Amino acid sequence: MRYSSLFGKTTYGDAQDSKFASHSWLVKGGFIRESSAGRYFFLPLGWRVHEKIRAIIKQEMDSAGAQEMITPILHPLSLWQETNRDSSVGFELMTVEDRRGAEFALGGTAEEMMVDVVRGFTISYRDLPFNIYQFSTKFRDELRARGGLLRVREFVMKDAYSFNRGPQDFKLEYDNMARTYHRIFQRLGLNAVMVEADNGYIGGEYSHEFVVESELGESSYFVSEDGRYVAHEDVAKFKREPVNPDDDILPFQIIEQPEWVKTMEDNQKHYGLPYAHYLKNVVYRHAQTNEIIIATIRGDLEVNKTKLEQVLNAVGLLVEATDEDLARIGTQRGWVHSWGHPARYIGDLSLTTVKNFIGGQKEATTDSINVNYGRDFECEMLADIALAQDGFLTEDGSQKLIEKRGIEVGNIFQLGYHYSSKMQGAVYIDEDGKEKPFYMGCYGIGLGRTLAAIVEQYHDDRGICWPESVAPFDVHLISLRGGEEKAVELYQKLREIGVDVLWDDRDTSPGVKFSDADIVGIPVRLVISKKTGDFIEYKRRTEKEAELLTWDEVFARLL
Amino acid sequence: MRYSSLFGKTTYGDAQDSKFASHSWLVKGGFIRESSAGRYFFLPLGWRVHEKIRAIIKQEMDSAGAQEMITPILHPLSLWQETNRDSSVGFELMTVEDRRGAEFALGGTAEEMMVDVVRGFTISYRDLPFNIYQFSTKFRDELRARGGLLRVREFVMKDAYSFNRGPQDFKLEYDNMARTYHRIFQRLGLNAVMVEADNGYIGGEYSHEFVVESELGESSYFVSEDGRYVAHEDVAKFKREPVNPDDDILPFQIIEQPEWVKTMEDNQKHYGLPYAHYLKNVVYRHAQTNEIIIATIRGDLEVNKTKLEQVLNAVGLLVEATDEDLARIGTQRGWVHSWGHPARYIGDLSLTTVKNFIGGQKEATTDSINVNYGRDFECEMLADIALAQDGFLTEDGSQKLIEKRGIEVGNIFQLGYHYSSKMQGAVYIDEDGKEKPFYMGCYGIGLGRTLAAIVEQYHDDRGICWPESVAPFDVHLISLRGGEEKAVELYQKLREIGVDVLWDDRDTSPGVKFSDADIVGIPVRLVISKKTGDFIEYKRRTEKEAELLTWDEVFARLL
Repeated sequence: MRYSSLFGKTTYGDAQDSKFASHSWLVKGGFIRESSAGRYFFLPLGWRVHEKIRAIIKQEMDSAGAQEMITPILHPLSLWQETNRDSSVGFELMTVEDRRGAEFALGGTAEEMMVDVVRGFTISYRDLPFNIYQFSTKFRDELRARGGLLRVREFVMKDAYSFNRGPQDFKLEYDNMARTYHRIFQRLGLNAVMVEADNGYIGGEYSHEFVVESELGESSYFVSEDGRYVAHEDVAKFKREPVNPDDDILPFQIIEQPEWVKTMEDNQKHYGLPYAHYLKNVVYRHAQTNEIIIATIRGDLEVNKTKLEQVLNAVGLLVEATDEDLARIGTQRGWVHSWGHPARYIGDLSLTTVKNFIGGQKEATTDSINVNYGRDFECEMLADIALAQDGFLTEDGSQKLIEKRGIEVGNIFQLGYHYSSKMQGAVYIDEDGKEKPFYMGCYGIGLGRTLAAIVEQYHDDRGICWPESVAPFDVHLISLRGGEEKAVELYQKLREIGVDVLWDDRDTSPGVKFSDADIVGIPVRLVISKKTGDFIEYKRRTEKEAELLTWDEVFARLL
Repeated sequence: MRYSSLFGKTTYGDAQDSKFASHSWLVKGGFIRESSAGRYFFLPLGWRVHEKIRAIIKQEMDSAGAQEMITPILHPLSLWQETNRDSSVGFELMTVEDRRGAEFALGGTAEEMMVDVVRGFTISYRDLPFNIYQFSTKFRDELRARGGLLRVREFVMKDAYSFNRGPQDFKLEYDNMARTYHRIFQRLGLNAVMVEADNGYIGGEYSHEFVVESELGESSYFVSEDGRYVAHEDVAKFKREPVNPDDDILPFQIIEQPEWVKTMEDNQKHYGLPYAHYLKNVVYRHAQTNEIIIATIRGDLEVNKTKLEQVLNAVGLLVEATDEDLARIGTQRGWVHSWGHPARYIGDLSLTTVKNFIGGQKEATTDSINVNYGRDFECEMLADIALAQDGFLTEDGSQKLIEKRGIEVGNIFQLGYHYSSKMQGAVYIDEDGKEKPFYMGCYGIGLGRTLAAIVEQYHDDRGICWPESVAPFDVHLISLRGGEEKAVELYQKLREIGVDVLWDDRDTSPGVKFSDADIVGIPVRLVISKKTGDFIEYKRRTEKEAELLTWDEVFARLL
């Protein structure tokens, strides 16, 4: 391809400066352009990369035995109603009505659609298991799009759905997909780690994220020192060590407390003890039932809302309580009691690690001290609802947890009977002639975000450095004054031997051409000019030095 | 692929019986399944065919110099407002609002989007011409979906857009695309004819449809006897021969007419003259201005609404007049006058081919006779607004027109300045340093409909007979009792030499396997059983007789 004819050349200017390298370089390099916020054009260069990623994913999915198909983008809303996902707060579903009044969801994920098409067939146990997948545009009505391709409202996702007889054959497929994902990300040049994760609005009991480490990523996870335990902050387990095991249990008391003592910091100042000694209460409202939930936790810990939602079986349904909510249970911000309000109290496991808590019944000038869980108050249940922190110990206490951030590029979910139990007719005929529900899993990869993650990992201060497997072209050929005729010949020959060449044939300065080549980031740069004579200047994007090679040497390196 | 593991096997039953062979066989064969009306799942078999079609189109578009990219599916509605296409009656646009209140159109075609992304760059004449295209899902809010994949509400379209400096270089690209389309359809096994067509809601001045002849097709077109003139009914020109050139012009008269004379048929009965001698009026209303338009035409001809809309520059905006509309201009159904109502009168060219028309001023018991255009009445203009008919002569009178029907599988449009004049900033910097609007064209192929057209052309009474270029697999291998072990070996060997095999390894009767193979329609069927011994039964789907071949002979035929 001649660069002169390419639509989507490099652009300069500040407009595309972003703290995300992938965002800046993809825009500057002419790979992508924003349409509306969070919705991107992929220009020809960007689309070549996108499609190389697609091809690698497809190859690996096919060799893993999965079958590609496609669902419509408009899903009958009735299907989402069957599984109650139309009303989940956690999912940014867009809906549309056609002119006959039929309602549709713009596909976000396709569990319901896949179950719907499968239940239309009579499936025997002999037909199982199978894994069907698609590459299709997905929609998320995100409040905030950010970071170029990292968080968008529209993107191509590879989503696969396995239909199994039960947990045993499902687990084989789950592991098969995990191995397949490792191979895919490896071929894409990505160092992706498999992280235990929360199932969220997708449902099911366990899942894993594939995360590419990056300080700017939105996924926060913890790794044990030996690397054996890797878990997302929404599920990461940790040991809550006793804070003051040797203290004696003292009698409960209500004491005077200066009016200025309001925050954790004030407590510390006043009582001189670290945060762990105070009781903390965080209040939520259930978006559907309006029930008030009070999460009670040790003062040095934070509540993880996702963990709390899992405990309450209210995924995506908890919202922060408003002042009105607090008034409704007879209290106000900062004065919430750890017992006694008309609310559901859920305690963190940490409540049993402290003797003689301070707090729990704060009023204007009084509070309680020497509060002990079990003796002075009890919650509806104690559960793991706290956020892990860097340096905490693993659950067995053997290792420290290290906090990391990364970009979530894929995930695999056990769904079990989550969908087949809610959608009528999602059954197969088993060997004994009886109808049994499918046992399912699903497996997603976001292509645009994966592309961005590649750039986050492969760039320097002059532009992108594409790994060969996904580079838009193999070779960036630059012809300079006096090299035009030879360039025609070289361009021709390279194409004949199957090398994809982007030829910068423009009548512009060497400086611009070199700078553009660095931004675009094709792995090999060839320069041909009067100066290079019968030779060709060969330089890899990631190396500093260029070499003068003969034509045959160049061909040999490229084959 | 083992048929036992394939999702989407053959189904039997009446549900999928349709007058469209493609609809019936694609459903029965497990290629497609309807989701909601007019929206289809492509099952793994169907998707393989779809993707083979895509690959052929992509190859040919790329070698023609076009560049693949992608636009978001959600188009900012503001762009459609810039070109007034949001309010066109002719286009079944779906719109959706996100939770921040931003409005979008679900992409139907992408002219506005492509112009929008291009105008975001500074384009010099040196960057021109270029042709950018995408494969993306398109939405049409059709009132009636029908015929399986033939008329749907959601489908993948290859849509290309060329940006040119002016009419000269544009014409080269238009011809380039026409040649490319011929190559594409040829490779797909389709006998597609290029038909002059109307530009409709797309805009621009001329266009061509690519049509596959089929009695069930929705496209009606005319071909001259020598095949040189091929035009869609919406643009087909024809000669209006004088009906009674030798008659004398008689004096205008209003005469008594029995009350029962109402229709053309009644006229013929009463006056004894053929339809051509009566005046006919067809009334429309302009959907935006509410203006009434009366199309006046020779009694034996029909008004072609599309031609009339073109004449009035009101594409997609004319609707049939209601009784209220007729009352508003002081008349009623069957009594419309050919002059005198407060309406715009547009006459067909045929009005000058008849002397002494009967009709034009019908009342309860009277009508006018000896009505002559020019002397007794005049329209705002005379134009070609009539539908051609089988047997009519070409415009130069040299040939008869033959009426045909077909399936429109693609089209190419000259757009000229239609979009660049309406969308601000759609300009390039020319050699003289001045900003000039792009001269454009666009080029579409509907993939699903093309797939259906292939089946319409390639099937018999037992199922589909795929052309090799798009067949889901190369070989349908059937193993029967006693052939299981050899089948494993053959399946392995065929895959090793790069042959795509669908292996029916089910434990089911030979009759079912043979019948399924016929429905699925893979070009070559191989049978291996105890009976075939060291040989393999080889049969082409389109041939009656099977042959017993050695393994080497089979390999030789397949390579």
